[in-house]
Amino acid sequence: MSEPKPVRNVLYIMCDQLRRDYLSCYGHAHLHTPNIDRLAAAGVRFSRAYTQGTICGPSRMSAYTGRYVSSHQVAWNAVPLPLEELTIGDYLRPHGIRTALVGKTHATPNLEALQRLQINPDSAQAEPLNEVGFDAYLRHDGIYPDSPLFEDKRESAPYTQYLRDHGYHGSNPWHEWANAAEGENGEVLSGWHMRNAGKPARVAEEHSETVYTTDRAIDFIDEQGEQPWCLHLSYIKPHWPYIAPAPYHALYGTEHVQAPIQPEHTSDHPVYQAFRQHQESQNFSRDEVRLTVIPTYMGLIKQIDDQLGRLFDFLQSTGRWDDTLIVFTSDHGDFLGDHFLGEKEFLLEPAVGVPLIVRDPRASADISRGTVDERLVETIDALPTFLDALGLPAADHRLEGRSLIPLLQGAQPTWRRYAIAEYDYAFQAPARERLEQPIDRCRMTMVRSERWKYLAYDGFRPQLFDLENDPQELHDLGSDPAYAEVRETHLGYLFDWLRGLKRRTTISHTEVELRGQWFRYGEPEAEKVVKIGVW
Amino acid sequence: MSEPKPVRNVLYIMCDQLRRDYLSCYGHAHLHTPNIDRLAAAGVRFSRAYTQGTICGPSRMSAYTGRYVSSHQVAWNAVPLPLEELTIGDYLRPHGIRTALVGKTHATPNLEALQRLQINPDSAQAEPLNEVGFDAYLRHDGIYPDSPLFEDKRESAPYTQYLRDHGYHGSNPWHEWANAAEGENGEVLSGWHMRNAGKPARVAEEHSETVYTTDRAIDFIDEQGEQPWCLHLSYIKPHWPYIAPAPYHALYGTEHVQAPIQPEHTSDHPVYQAFRQHQESQNFSRDEVRLTVIPTYMGLIKQIDDQLGRLFDFLQSTGRWDDTLIVFTSDHGDFLGDHFLGEKEFLLEPAVGVPLIVRDPRASADISRGTVDERLVETIDALPTFLDALGLPAADHRLEGRSLIPLLQGAQPTWRRYAIAEYDYAFQAPARERLEQPIDRCRMTMVRSERWKYLAYDGFRPQLFDLENDPQELHDLGSDPAYAEVRETHLGYLFDWLRGLKRRTTISHTEVELRGQWFRYGEPEAEKVVKIGVW
Repeated sequence: MSEPKPVRNVLYIMCDQLRRDYLSCYGHAHLHTPNIDRLAAAGVRFSRAYTQGTICGPSRMSAYTGRYVSSHQVAWNAVPLPLEELTIGDYLRPHGIRTALVGKTHATPNLEALQRLQINPDSAQAEPLNEVGFDAYLRHDGIYPDSPLFEDKRESAPYTQYLRDHGYHGSNPWHEWANAAEGENGEVLSGWHMRNAGKPARVAEEHSETVYTTDRAIDFIDEQGEQPWCLHLSYIKPHWPYIAPAPYHALYGTEHVQAPIQPEHTSDHPVYQAFRQHQESQNFSRDEVRLTVIPTYMGLIKQIDDQLGRLFDFLQSTGRWDDTLIVFTSDHGDFLGDHFLGEKEFLLEPAVGVPLIVRDPRASADISRGTVDERLVETIDALPTFLDALGLPAADHRLEGRSLIPLLQGAQPTWRRYAIAEYDYAFQAPARERLEQPIDRCRMTMVRSERWKYLAYDGFRPQLFDLENDPQELHDLGSDPAYAEVRETHLGYLFDWLRGLKRRTTISHTEVELRGQWFRYGEPEAEKVVKIGVW
Repeated sequence: MSEPKPVRNVLYIMCDQLRRDYLSCYGHAHLHTPNIDRLAAAGVRFSRAYTQGTICGPSRMSAYTGRYVSSHQVAWNAVPLPLEELTIGDYLRPHGIRTALVGKTHATPNLEALQRLQINPDSAQAEPLNEVGFDAYLRHDGIYPDSPLFEDKRESAPYTQYLRDHGYHGSNPWHEWANAAEGENGEVLSGWHMRNAGKPARVAEEHSETVYTTDRAIDFIDEQGEQPWCLHLSYIKPHWPYIAPAPYHALYGTEHVQAPIQPEHTSDHPVYQAFRQHQESQNFSRDEVRLTVIPTYMGLIKQIDDQLGRLFDFLQSTGRWDDTLIVFTSDHGDFLGDHFLGEKEFLLEPAVGVPLIVRDPRASADISRGTVDERLVETIDALPTFLDALGLPAADHRLEGRSLIPLLQGAQPTWRRYAIAEYDYAFQAPARERLEQPIDRCRMTMVRSERWKYLAYDGFRPQLFDLENDPQELHDLGSDPAYAEVRETHLGYLFDWLRGLKRRTTISHTEVELRGQWFRYGEPEAEKVVKIGVW
């Protein structure tokens, strides 16, 4: 009998704005995703996985650092990550594991810190910092607006060049071909306008973003040969612009759209009510918008599933399926009109719940293959899981997530009692101004326990939902006196969480222990180096 | 009438381990400190000032960053400050204000971060980082032990060279002359042994550390001429080794030693009881130790006061008294046997209370000269005070302290309801092991309100003291059912504080506001750059 194969590689697949319930393995009635389901059948599907931030930047930085948003401080998109936050690459690269990116990170260079440290932001020294630790094999962060402000970035983007090389011309081929449809008279109909969602994109499917991204991932893996690697394959889709290449634009119709969660009596919570005033919320509250957008959203997911089928076939044909840990997830969901909201800036399930499937190829994980795990898991668990699978040391003084490997192996460790997510609406001037909140008092925090979801707000009463009896979050119990004790318990969890954030990150536990012995008090005087308190 | 002079310079004087009540202006019956009292008469004396950490490193990093220990993360001595924490020099230097150090900072190079950022730790680029933002005109961090482990540092220290230049020879003149006495047969009696505290140091007073440090401060100020500066004059004394040069070793006798605070019935709190087992606590609980050490501790303070008199005379003779903001404080206190404790690692008043005197030379502060301000102020208030006095912008997204300038000008702003201090005994192996606490659950946090002091402990019940009726903290009300409500209120303050820590430090409030307007939702579609949610 041969030695069991170790895990040598990590494939960390992330979709953007993919709702958990838009996969057949998570229960969608009409959208069949056989390839993602194949991964779930070969691994473990986590039914209650949560992102730590419901927009791209915060969520992704939690994924890459293994830390909560309040720890890594990227409270919103385009907020720089502190240079000293260590990311996946920092942990893996010293052990000879090439850690690369194909797709999106939403990383923003920390120019102020670079300048203060006298590091040229265009230098090789700055590059891994600007790319939050990834070797940017292909960075593809999603379309830049058709505005002169973004022209430089767009021109230097590999996908712009790729489109030009394949005959898609114009000043912004990314917008004009990949994210636009064509009108009856040949006019460009922008994908930025949701009314155009039902039309086919002008780009051929084989040159569309999802295929292009998959191609590059296969190239990368192929090039590594037998060298170990960690690849973050990060699709920009099904994130808006909601427009899909043929045939994916027309695979689904209004008859395949799930009924929206739109309760007759909504919560009167001021923050929720303010978010309902946003333009995307008002638009998505209309059936016309939902029924135009959602079939295309489904088509974009179907395309990803097809491409993942191709990728998984490639892994199987090259042997990589057997020595690679595969994690599939999303950075956050999409309201799509549920709760009369659009986008994802609120901590209800359609936004904060994410799919999470983990496949460990080792025999030690056979016990759990094809099972569904209901424990509360978080996006920050990915990095500790990678370290564990690769046999690398944990970093308990920094990492706030937990390895999922023991769960895959059938263990029943004491597990977390609650999951946390955060959102900061300081950056959304209309809601902040309407609510008259100062710029540093616009935070909402989710504490999700086995049964309850508690949402804390700076300056406003909490919300509370009983997910056991009200999984759609239709009844806000946040001001109901009958639930005062439940709220108090969850406020206690919030305190416990805040208290537990890692705030001693520049020194390891091992080093603390060494120092503790070194400066040992009460030992024989003669052996003390620093003779504190000696008579 | 001439224009009022602005504040051009800042003199930030810090003593090390100076107890608040060991100055005559703070009420000491026998120790007269007329020069420090002169400063208090010319400014405002804060009677309830608190350090944020009771040992050197944490306290000083709070002073230099304007942030709580949990924010800057330097939980103990010799823990590196994250490179991205901005310090006094970072705020002042861009405005042309030379920000220099004469004395101690307890800064530790962040070698791990420097290495990761590919910055040579010996380079000019690293120097301001290694010196936590100061221009190290003279770094004098206190004596290095007489061990080969520290030989390199000792040899490169300016004071070692200074002593050699003045005829003090030997392998470690710092130890053998400045911090040692001489026995009857010429043998060196180490100041590390408290039994030798009553004897005169072998160094002449004019070459002792306190005079040497003052000399260099005067040199620095003199050299600046009319250029603006900020000087951190940071005395290593009256910190141990407790040994003073003549005549200061003999100015005070046992009759001048205040009665200790040693209650008949001490608290049964497990953490307190564990700290009582430390060697320095056991030694300081003995009268022999206290009566030998304290007169010398007083002498060391008297020497500082004399030297400050010389410095203040110099400032007055050169006009600097009139355009310099002067702050006098200490990094923490010293138990000296009170509560049967030695050293300062516990959050009772003798350790956590610090002197704080602020003199603003401007006419706008005349209203408060010579007054005592009882508001709760913190060490982290220094940096915001400097910025305010110098007319520089605040950094609300990072700074957690508050400017004291409005208080000096007689304003009555809404003020903080509580002061915070922290200590982490993970580094003290005996207490941690005795208490069976994991390495990240060894924190104690003080919440000091107008009337009460509440001490929270990881894993143990809190302590509570009524400082109005029990200013000596003799009666621990931490488990008394009658005070459950007071404890609950203070636990609420602790939560409020944790929640309020600044966790969005890489982006300014101004920038958040700009972004909020830029990505404004609900505005006319045509004006949106990123067309989110547009139909």
